[in-house]
Amino acid sequence: MKSTMTFKTTEGGVCAAKGFTAAGIHCGIRKNRTKYDLAMIVSDRKASAAAVYTTNKVKGAPIAVTKENIADGYARAVICNSGNANTCNADGFEKARMMCDIAADALGISTNDIVVASTGVIGQTLPIEPIAEYAKALAEKLSADGSADANLAIMTTDTRQKTISIEFELDGKICHMGGIAKGSGMIHPNMATMLGFITTDANVAPAALQSALSKCITDTFNMVSVDGDTSTNDMVCILANGAAENTLIEDEDEVFTQALFTVCRHISRELAKDGEGASRLIECTVKGAATENDARIAAKGVVSSSLFKAAVFGADANWGRVLCAIGYSGAEFDPLKVDVDMASCKGSFAVCRAGYGVDFSEEDAKIILSEDEIFINLDFHQGDAEATAFGCDLTYDYVKINGDYRT
Amino acid sequence: MKSTMTFKTTEGGVCAAKGFTAAGIHCGIRKNRTKYDLAMIVSDRKASAAAVYTTNKVKGAPIAVTKENIADGYARAVICNSGNANTCNADGFEKARMMCDIAADALGISTNDIVVASTGVIGQTLPIEPIAEYAKALAEKLSADGSADANLAIMTTDTRQKTISIEFELDGKICHMGGIAKGSGMIHPNMATMLGFITTDANVAPAALQSALSKCITDTFNMVSVDGDTSTNDMVCILANGAAENTLIEDEDEVFTQALFTVCRHISRELAKDGEGASRLIECTVKGAATENDARIAAKGVVSSSLFKAAVFGADANWGRVLCAIGYSGAEFDPLKVDVDMASCKGSFAVCRAGYGVDFSEEDAKIILSEDEIFINLDFHQGDAEATAFGCDLTYDYVKINGDYRT
Repeated sequence: MKSTMTFKTTEGGVCAAKGFTAAGIHCGIRKNRTKYDLAMIVSDRKASAAAVYTTNKVKGAPIAVTKENIADGYARAVICNSGNANTCNADGFEKARMMCDIAADALGISTNDIVVASTGVIGQTLPIEPIAEYAKALAEKLSADGSADANLAIMTTDTRQKTISIEFELDGKICHMGGIAKGSGMIHPNMATMLGFITTDANVAPAALQSALSKCITDTFNMVSVDGDTSTNDMVCILANGAAENTLIEDEDEVFTQALFTVCRHISRELAKDGEGASRLIECTVKGAATENDARIAAKGVVSSSLFKAAVFGADANWGRVLCAIGYSGAEFDPLKVDVDMASCKGSFAVCRAGYGVDFSEEDAKIILSEDEIFINLDFHQGDAEATAFGCDLTYDYVKINGDYRT
Repeated sequence: MKSTMTFKTTEGGVCAAKGFTAAGIHCGIRKNRTKYDLAMIVSDRKASAAAVYTTNKVKGAPIAVTKENIADGYARAVICNSGNANTCNADGFEKARMMCDIAADALGISTNDIVVASTGVIGQTLPIEPIAEYAKALAEKLSADGSADANLAIMTTDTRQKTISIEFELDGKICHMGGIAKGSGMIHPNMATMLGFITTDANVAPAALQSALSKCITDTFNMVSVDGDTSTNDMVCILANGAAENTLIEDEDEVFTQALFTVCRHISRELAKDGEGASRLIECTVKGAATENDARIAAKGVVSSSLFKAAVFGADANWGRVLCAIGYSGAEFDPLKVDVDMASCKGSFAVCRAGYGVDFSEEDAKIILSEDEIFINLDFHQGDAEATAFGCDLTYDYVKINGDYRT
C-alpha cells in the first residue's frame, strides 16, 4: 500500500492516545544500573488488541504466550524486558506466563489481558526475580509522560528512540495514535529482536484492527532490511482502547488504516536509519514491476546487498551492484528494460537506461550521495506494481577498504 | 556428495596436468603496474570443456560468449582479465568476442576454442587496447611454471592465491588435476566474481565432464557463503585434454568425480577462508535432515548469519544465533529436536540438546573457538540427509562493538 494522507504529528508517543500510561525502570536483568530494562504500557480500560509476529521457525516463548492472551481480541497492558530474549530455554513458557502474572497482579487486572515481550540474549535462563521485585514500583511510575522511559527500557543497542504520535479524525472525533519501537541496526548481537508497540484511542473492533495491522506491515516493517537476520522475537502489537468515542470501526476504514500506515512507516524508516553506526538511510523504490511481489523482493534485494551498502557509505554511484542485487533477488524482470536513478534532497541523476550504463557526472553524484537519505529508484517497465524498501549503509569501520573502490 | 577418497597433492596448480601452460601479465586495465591483470591458461591440444555459471539474472557478457564457445564441448585456452567485469555495457558482447579473437590470434588457434572471463567493476566500458597490446607477450610467457602468475592475474582483493593440484589413477595411468581460483571475501567491492579454472590431463568426454562438474559444484562452490551477493560473472570451468591417455571416460567414473570433488572442495574452503580480513573459517555441517535441500539451506543459513559470524569472531559460543539462523533459513525441521555442537582442533562441546541450551564451560568454549577453523555441527534427528557449508567470521573492524556481546 501507499501513503495517500498526511497527519498532524503530536507529542506523547504511546501515551498520546487517551487512557494510556507508560513507564520504564531498571529492575536488574541488565547489570548496568543506569539502563532501564523493564517497560509497561497500560490502558485504563480494555482495548482491542492485534499483533504480527516473526516468521522465524524458532520462536521466543513470549510470542506464544502473547498469542494465547490476545486470542480473544483484547488486552490491557504490555510488559516487556530487555537484556534477555527468554528464547530456547526449557522454562521459557513458564517464565513468560510468570511475567504476565506478575504484571497482572501489580496492575490489578487479568493475566489474560497482558501482552508479554522479551528482547536480548537467546538461550539464557530469564531471571524472574528482578521482574517480580520491581513490577509494583514500575506500575506506580506509570504516567502520561512515560512513553520515553518505556522506549528506553525496551532498547538494547539502539542509539536512539524510535517514536511518533499523530492525530486523526473519525466521524468528528479527534483520535490519537502513537508508537514506540526498538530494533536492530546493521548487526546487533546484543539482541535479536525488533519490537514495536502502538496505541490508539480510536474505537476499533479486534478483527478490523488485526486486518489493518496486517495490511500495513507488508509495506513497512516487512520492507526493512538490517543484517538479514530475522529474529525469533520480532513482534508489532497494537492496542485500541476506544477512548476517543468514535463509532466502532468494524470494517476497513481508510483514515484509520492510513494513520496506522503512517505510524508503521515512520517507525520502519527509523529502524533502518539506526543501523549500527549507519550514516545514511537507503530507500529503494521499484516501480513498473509485473507484480507487487517482484517489486518487493527486488527493492529488498537492493537495500540488503552488502556490496551496494558499502558503495552508499562511500557515496559511490556504483549502480552495477544495484543490477547485481536485483539479478539474484529472485524478482522477475527483463535486465534489458531496467532504468536506475539515484537521488537525495540535493537532486537526482540517471545511472542506467535499458540495462546499460549512461554517463553521469561523478562530481555531482558524490554531492547528491553524500546526504543522509539516499533514494534508489528503479523502473522495470514491465507493469504497474511498485514497492519501497528501507535499509542503511555499511559504515567506515566495516568497509574502510571497500567503500570507495572505483577511484 | 561426500569425500570418500584421498589423493596425493602435487605442485603446479593448473600446469600440473600434462600439456597445460599458463601465464599472467600486467597489460594496463589496472592502473597499478605491479598488479597482473591478464591471464592465460592453454592446453597444447584440444580439451573437453565444461562450466557452471552464475544464477544471477543479470549476467556478464563473457559468460554468454564462453557458453557459445564451449557449446560444442571443447576448448583449448582461457583468457581472463581482472579490473573490469565487462558487464552491463552496451558493447559487452562485442568486447568479450574481441578478447577471444585476440587470444586466438596470439595462440594461433580457433576463436571458438577460447573460454573468456572478466572480473572487476560492473558497468564500465572494458578497454580492449591493453589486451590487444599485451596478448602476444602473454602468449610468449606461457610456461609450465605459470600457474601462480595466472592466479595472481585473476585476483582482485584476494589476499592470497587459492590453488591445489592432485594426482590420481585411471586404468593404470597417472592423471593430474589442478585448479586456481579467485574470489570474494566477506565483502569485496573491488569485484563481484568468483572464478575457478580447473585443468586435468584425464581423458573425459564433454558430457561426462559437465556431469561430474555439475555434481561436484552443489556441495562445494554452491555451499560457500561470503557476503550473500551472488555475482553476475561467477564461473567455474574445467578443461580435460586427455594427455594422460587413459581410456576415455564417457560415463560417471567414481575416481574422477572424487578427484574433482577434492579440488572443488579445497578451493571452496580457501575462498571462504579468505574473507575480507576474516580470521576464522566456519564450517557448518547439518546431519539428520529430512532432505539434502533442508540440510543445505540450514547449513548455509548458519554460515551466512551476520550475527553468528560476529559471535565466531569473538570466539563466543552464542548458539542461540545458530538456532535463529536455521529458523529463518527456510529449512524444514522441528526446533525441539535440534542438537548443536561446536568444535575445533582443540576439542568439541555440546551447546544445545533438543532445542534447549545445555551447560558448558565458557572457558573451554573460548579456547576451542579461538582456533582458525571452527566447526558447527547440527543434528536435526529427522532423517539421513547431510550437507556442509563454508563461511568466515566477521572481523574486528566490522564488529568491534558486537563481537563479544554476552560478557
